Amino acid sequence: MTMPSLNLDFNYIILSGGVGGAKLAYGFLSCHEPSRLMVVGNVGDDFKYWGLNISPDLDTLLYTLAGVSDQKRGWGRSSETWSVLEEMRNLGGDSWFQLGDRDLAVHIERTERLSQGQRLSTITQDLAKKFGIECALLPITDRIVRTVLDTDVGSLEFQEYFVRHKCAPQVTKLHYTGCNRAVIQPEIYACLRSSALRAIIISPSNPFLSIDPMLSVSSFKQEIARCRKPVVAVSPLVGARAFKGPTAKIMRELGYEVSAFAVASHYTSNLIDGFVLDTEDSELVPQIQQLGIQTYVTDISMNTSEDKTRLAGEVLDFARTLEC
Amino acid sequence: MTMPSLNLDFNYIILSGGVGGAKLAYGFLSCHEPSRLMVVGNVGDDFKYWGLNISPDLDTLLYTLAGVSDQKRGWGRSSETWSVLEEMRNLGGDSWFQLGDRDLAVHIERTERLSQGQRLSTITQDLAKKFGIECALLPITDRIVRTVLDTDVGSLEFQEYFVRHKCAPQVTKLHYTGCNRAVIQPEIYACLRSSALRAIIISPSNPFLSIDPMLSVSSFKQEIARCRKPVVAVSPLVGARAFKGPTAKIMRELGYEVSAFAVASHYTSNLIDGFVLDTEDSELVPQIQQLGIQTYVTDISMNTSEDKTRLAGEVLDFARTLEC
Repeated sequence: MTMPSLNLDFNYIILSGGVGGAKLAYGFLSCHEPSRLMVVGNVGDDFKYWGLNISPDLDTLLYTLAGVSDQKRGWGRSSETWSVLEEMRNLGGDSWFQLGDRDLAVHIERTERLSQGQRLSTITQDLAKKFGIECALLPITDRIVRTVLDTDVGSLEFQEYFVRHKCAPQVTKLHYTGCNRAVIQPEIYACLRSSALRAIIISPSNPFLSIDPMLSVSSFKQEIARCRKPVVAVSPLVGARAFKGPTAKIMRELGYEVSAFAVASHYTSNLIDGFVLDTEDSELVPQIQQLGIQTYVTDISMNTSEDKTRLAGEVLDFARTLEC
Repeated sequence: MTMPSLNLDFNYIILSGGVGGAKLAYGFLSCHEPSRLMVVGNVGDDFKYWGLNISPDLDTLLYTLAGVSDQKRGWGRSSETWSVLEEMRNLGGDSWFQLGDRDLAVHIERTERLSQGQRLSTITQDLAKKFGIECALLPITDRIVRTVLDTDVGSLEFQEYFVRHKCAPQVTKLHYTGCNRAVIQPEIYACLRSSALRAIIISPSNPFLSIDPMLSVSSFKQEIARCRKPVVAVSPLVGARAFKGPTAKIMRELGYEVSAFAVASHYTSNLIDGFVLDTEDSELVPQIQQLGIQTYVTDISMNTSEDKTRLAGEVLDFARTLEC
């Protein structure tokens, strides 16, 4: 199996988890030549369900970048139908994770091709093309990395925690199984070593659940450091509120202060050069700068397409000011 | 994995392929206590598609016996929707075999349970219960038996021949791979040795594509002979016409005369004691009786529920006359 030939003159690598990250990634499509963007998705939330390989973050990126995500529901496909799920309930099969019919086609296609020995990255790239996506979309690795949460009800994989247990259990520790054996895609490696690369953007996804599983893949952090290109992270918090999901709750339970400062400080100046935070958090600027991290303050909420494009543009402008 | 406990006081075993056999099996439900009927389905047409285990004959039996088959279309579920297939076409995935959304739920459930090591018979039995079916429904074997057709375009599995190639290739030979290694279900074996058994009915399915793959399972024919109970086959032909599917075409290509006589003679008096044929074919009665096979002539077409019940009732009455 060969990778569909990828232009490797990428200017930006965008690391993204699900919804929040995907919104910003979508914004980049309107303010930079899409074929020069490499969006890299988290696979730590991937799991097996109905015997199928589900990649929630890659799918959210796929649907969001293609403009076919359901924005009202907040997940899955627009114009979705639910016949299979309804029938599965009748049959007494698993129904705790809601798979729509159109969404299911993607999982069936992915699962079948994986079982034939194809690479997850090849499949993801092919799916992206079928969906008319012009930027590159890749999983961080073809190997299995799983985000496991140690909680008061035992160890849970992310989707069990998130969907089945509705984020209720108290989290005591996170780990990313398989990360030491995993390697980043050769395409990402090549991109990090390319002179065309201008910056790496860490999108406003959950640092612990979406970004760290990617950063934990062996030698990825060292490769980022070695490439000496600006790394800019966008805060996933406004005040002590996350836009979506359990970020604030998990930070609290892990003993972090729930703030943009805590996120920047978690990433550390070893990793990031710049940090984008919300105007509501502007009083944190001096603290963050003391960490040796440059800051950019703006409205980071992304409700409309215009918000996404504007924020993405500002992030790129900010990254340019950090180029060595 | 244990089999859901089956009452083993079955009075009739009904061997069935897909549509035609399922119609007659449905008829039996109204003229004999369903819990005393064991319907045994062919697995020779089973195949993998979209990475899923599809059992077309078992599914047709499932939907027909549950009264949820689509009678107008002639296959699949009633009230079906097609979102997954439509999306699969958009993704460029396989779409030569049409799977409806509700139908798909059954395949997903079956595939997942098979991958967990459960028996096909356990799964089939559970599905039948979920569908409210009161008779037993079992595959002939849990092992893999596949009907392979040697044709002028090469060897084809049944669904490739039937759906992908629309029965166009010329058939030169049939074989049933795996039949020597396969064994009949212990429940069928027990039923054949039970004193409650009154007769074995071979429903009007294609002798070569649906019935022979079952009869070819090792020692099944010997077990049928050993039980010394009447075996009654119902003709799948009226004149030289099959009700459905490629029966007539295949008989011709294999060098058989296309007639009820050829079917009875194919089964032989070693296997069957009685043969039910259509009034249109009554002139064949002497020939068939010369084979040492008793005959019963009636209208064997099954267009309405009443037809199915009437024919099933007549078949049982005929079988009773053959009891030793």
